[in-house]
Amino acid sequence: MKLEKLVGDRFKERPSDCQTDSHALMVRGGYMKYVANGIYSSYMPLRRITRKIEQIIREEMDRIDGQEVQFPVAMPASLWEESGRYTSVGKELLRFTDRNGSQMVLGMTHEEAAVQLVRDYGQSYGKYPFMIYQIQTKFRDEARPRAGLIRVREFTMKDGYSFHTSQEDLEQYYAKCHKAYENIFRRTGVPEVISVLSDSGMMGGNISHEFMLLTPIGEDSIAICQECGYSANMEAAECLYDNRDNSEAEALTKKATPNVKSIEEVCGFLGSSAEKSCKAVVYQKNEDDAYVIVFLRGDLDVNETKLRNFVGGELHPAIITEESGICAGFIGPVGLNVKATVLYDRSLQGQKNLICGANEVDAHYMGFCPERDADVKEYGDFAKIADGGICPICKKHAIKVSRGIEVGNIFQLGTKYTKTMGMTYLDENGESHYPIMGCYGIGVGRLAASICEAHHDDYGPIWPMPIAPWQVHICAVRADDAEVKKTADELYEKLENMGAEVMYDDRDVSAGVMFSDADLLGIPVRAVVSPRNLKENCCEISARDKSFSIKVPVNEAAEKIMELIKELMEKYN
Amino acid sequence: MKLEKLVGDRFKERPSDCQTDSHALMVRGGYMKYVANGIYSSYMPLRRITRKIEQIIREEMDRIDGQEVQFPVAMPASLWEESGRYTSVGKELLRFTDRNGSQMVLGMTHEEAAVQLVRDYGQSYGKYPFMIYQIQTKFRDEARPRAGLIRVREFTMKDGYSFHTSQEDLEQYYAKCHKAYENIFRRTGVPEVISVLSDSGMMGGNISHEFMLLTPIGEDSIAICQECGYSANMEAAECLYDNRDNSEAEALTKKATPNVKSIEEVCGFLGSSAEKSCKAVVYQKNEDDAYVIVFLRGDLDVNETKLRNFVGGELHPAIITEESGICAGFIGPVGLNVKATVLYDRSLQGQKNLICGANEVDAHYMGFCPERDADVKEYGDFAKIADGGICPICKKHAIKVSRGIEVGNIFQLGTKYTKTMGMTYLDENGESHYPIMGCYGIGVGRLAASICEAHHDDYGPIWPMPIAPWQVHICAVRADDAEVKKTADELYEKLENMGAEVMYDDRDVSAGVMFSDADLLGIPVRAVVSPRNLKENCCEISARDKSFSIKVPVNEAAEKIMELIKELMEKYN
Repeated sequence: MKLEKLVGDRFKERPSDCQTDSHALMVRGGYMKYVANGIYSSYMPLRRITRKIEQIIREEMDRIDGQEVQFPVAMPASLWEESGRYTSVGKELLRFTDRNGSQMVLGMTHEEAAVQLVRDYGQSYGKYPFMIYQIQTKFRDEARPRAGLIRVREFTMKDGYSFHTSQEDLEQYYAKCHKAYENIFRRTGVPEVISVLSDSGMMGGNISHEFMLLTPIGEDSIAICQECGYSANMEAAECLYDNRDNSEAEALTKKATPNVKSIEEVCGFLGSSAEKSCKAVVYQKNEDDAYVIVFLRGDLDVNETKLRNFVGGELHPAIITEESGICAGFIGPVGLNVKATVLYDRSLQGQKNLICGANEVDAHYMGFCPERDADVKEYGDFAKIADGGICPICKKHAIKVSRGIEVGNIFQLGTKYTKTMGMTYLDENGESHYPIMGCYGIGVGRLAASICEAHHDDYGPIWPMPIAPWQVHICAVRADDAEVKKTADELYEKLENMGAEVMYDDRDVSAGVMFSDADLLGIPVRAVVSPRNLKENCCEISARDKSFSIKVPVNEAAEKIMELIKELMEKYN
Repeated sequence: MKLEKLVGDRFKERPSDCQTDSHALMVRGGYMKYVANGIYSSYMPLRRITRKIEQIIREEMDRIDGQEVQFPVAMPASLWEESGRYTSVGKELLRFTDRNGSQMVLGMTHEEAAVQLVRDYGQSYGKYPFMIYQIQTKFRDEARPRAGLIRVREFTMKDGYSFHTSQEDLEQYYAKCHKAYENIFRRTGVPEVISVLSDSGMMGGNISHEFMLLTPIGEDSIAICQECGYSANMEAAECLYDNRDNSEAEALTKKATPNVKSIEEVCGFLGSSAEKSCKAVVYQKNEDDAYVIVFLRGDLDVNETKLRNFVGGELHPAIITEESGICAGFIGPVGLNVKATVLYDRSLQGQKNLICGANEVDAHYMGFCPERDADVKEYGDFAKIADGGICPICKKHAIKVSRGIEVGNIFQLGTKYTKTMGMTYLDENGESHYPIMGCYGIGVGRLAASICEAHHDDYGPIWPMPIAPWQVHICAVRADDAEVKKTADELYEKLENMGAEVMYDDRDVSAGVMFSDADLLGIPVRAVVSPRNLKENCCEISARDKSFSIKVPVNEAAEKIMELIKELMEKYN
């Protein structure tokens, strides 16, 4: 099509409300427009990109026997009441009332709808396994939408649900789907996406993986072992410690620590380090405001996901009242006499001679030995893994924490939904069982934005060929020159007839404007027809990623371009 | 794919809650599942059909330079406040509040979103004309969902919006789009769809057309001239009358009409007919309950759409109170002394010697001559056209009223939305104008159901090749027979390799079950491999619509099937 007719504005200035490059470039390039907080409209270039991504996803899902279906966006609350999520999920689940007063929700995920669709069908073991998926609009009422399409409230998602009669069968299919996801990310141009173990969160179930594109703007922290390649979301990464300590246990001694506040100050004041201290972090359960005190090594942070999973409910940082008897700033295991759940992190196990609070103002203990001085029933894993931490697989101190965007996830759900929603099947012996489920998601718009985040320069996105909005961009520089116009027109027509997806810029604008618009559209192959090139009877063919720039005789240009398109397409096969 | 793995149940019994054949067959055939009132999930066969319909629509929209975009499903109420529709549209517009207390709506149509998307872009005349469209989920909180996918609350729709700098340009594009719609209906297998003039309703604007599939289960009434082909939605069809009356005007005479109620009874009692009477129908304005009395010929019905458009607001049938002074059952133009808007339908113009109420209980007049006896300022067009009515184009008594399903519509919107939402452009002379809009809709699911309604038999849908869920259905009758299984397996593999979309039934079930399942899936070409056929080294290839049934040597079957698929595809080109 002609660029002149492309609806949408392109401009130079980075919008002030865009924190990430992909967001700024996709606004500047006429890909998307803000409608409301976390809600955008897409212009044609973005819609073409998302449609190509959707098609790649569809092909890979079909290849692993996925059956494309469609669930409703608006669902009756009763469906979510069956699974218990109508009450257990927070405000992200948008609830509303229809004209007849019925309670409804907007779908943010479709486990309930999937079970409802196949509950009658899947009554006999012979029907299993099967997988159904959809590609559709979802709504999640996020508190803090951010970074353009990275975290929005309304988005298009591919969500799939598989049903199995055994854990082994689920695991086999899960592995197939993991492979399909690798194919999807490779084919959409981001083979660098890695899969990491994750915490399943509100989805329930056990094993789950997130597919992460590593980038500093990512919202997630990922622990990666530099030695063996182990990787996990920091929320899920197990922490190990090597606390062998052959030093002599010293006596527990109370010290006055007036006017020293932070853990570092206390340790400095007492001539020790944060690693040789035991700090307390206090939470309250959302349910009843009961206190939860976590003791862990002074240099570590609490991993609230692990803590939440252990406690079995939501938590918030504590507001410590006087009545609680908790002596904020000086909490320690020795002589702690308060109403609270007290937990010990495994970073303290085997430690000796630590500094800890003395449960009175301006006082700390030295020489604290957990095993000797505290009544520790068990140690748990409540800390965040950090750079240099021990890899839970190869046991080397080789963990590095990076940031990443989650572009997909897969979960082994188990029977959480089939049990609550009463879906059963009869096995060979006529016995009734609950099917075991897996679920598999990819956010289409987020993937598009992530690809842009991973592949751009200062001037615009650099779209990989398989998802580029168009394949080749013709710039007729000086289209007012009859020879240029004729040559470019012919090239355009020829390429269109050969089946290429062509963006054709024959506007009467400067080369500068033309090229900066082309940069913003990020089309992988560019063909420039200009008076200067025509003097040599050539046109210039170059790559948006600057990997090549060649001069080709005018009458060979179309064939050469088709060849390049094919090459750049196959690169991702 | 193998039928054995197709998720969804097929069954024989017509579900009791299905009023229409298409609904019953699409439930029986495993196409869709009820989730909530007017809300369904789609199984794979329906999703494949809707995707093919979507692709045909997309191709035709792209061919008339439509640019595919995407608007949000959830929109801020403020957008609808700009156009005034937040208050003017009734409960069909689903309104809700998000977690931050912002008022939102679910999109039932996207004029506002379209203007918002291009308001900044379209500031110069040089950018015009352009058309943007999307294919997406919509929600309309219908009071009475019915007939399966014909009238639902959640549905997928293609909606397009064009922008122009002159009415002539809009009309040109409108004609192009009309042609594109004809292409779409032909290509999806329902070339019999006709376009009819319609009332624009809440969309605003003037000229509009509805595309109607004529079927007795349709919700709409369409007036079609059997002579000249004129057609219009009954809501919009203009009524003409030939009231030349050379008879002598009789004296106005009051008659007692005790215990005669209906218009027919009164006329019978007074020795006349409904056509020679003047009846009154009373409404109240929703706004202030003010009365509106319409006088029209006794054999006609009021067209409430015309009346609403004339009055400029919503109306409801009147509740006649004693205080109103209206003498229900005996209302007539003579001596009518009540507070009401009094309207005369043009069916009364030129009439003589009619029967009418006398505004007192049990009394009517005979000999009523509107021009002589009533103070008629003007006659309006307030009646429904009926069979035998006069065609407004060719003026012959050739109107026939049929039922139809509206499968698409196109509107000339004018400047209603650009004006209210402040979208302007500068012309060649630097003068500011409001762009003129057109809008163009097709409901995808409704079209699928309509095609089924138009093309089915007692045993299932008969899908036209271009939108059929699969192209060929192989039945391996007696798949336990090794020869049958081998032949059918090979045919399946060969056809898949040749690029056909194949449904393969190799279940160990009776031929009866196999064929009734095949009928329910409605795939246009069927290939039967059976021991009987194999004796002749043949397989039987037949059409779902019974138009052919041939025996073909096994080794020629695949080629023959590919040929048939091509033929049946091209039939709709």
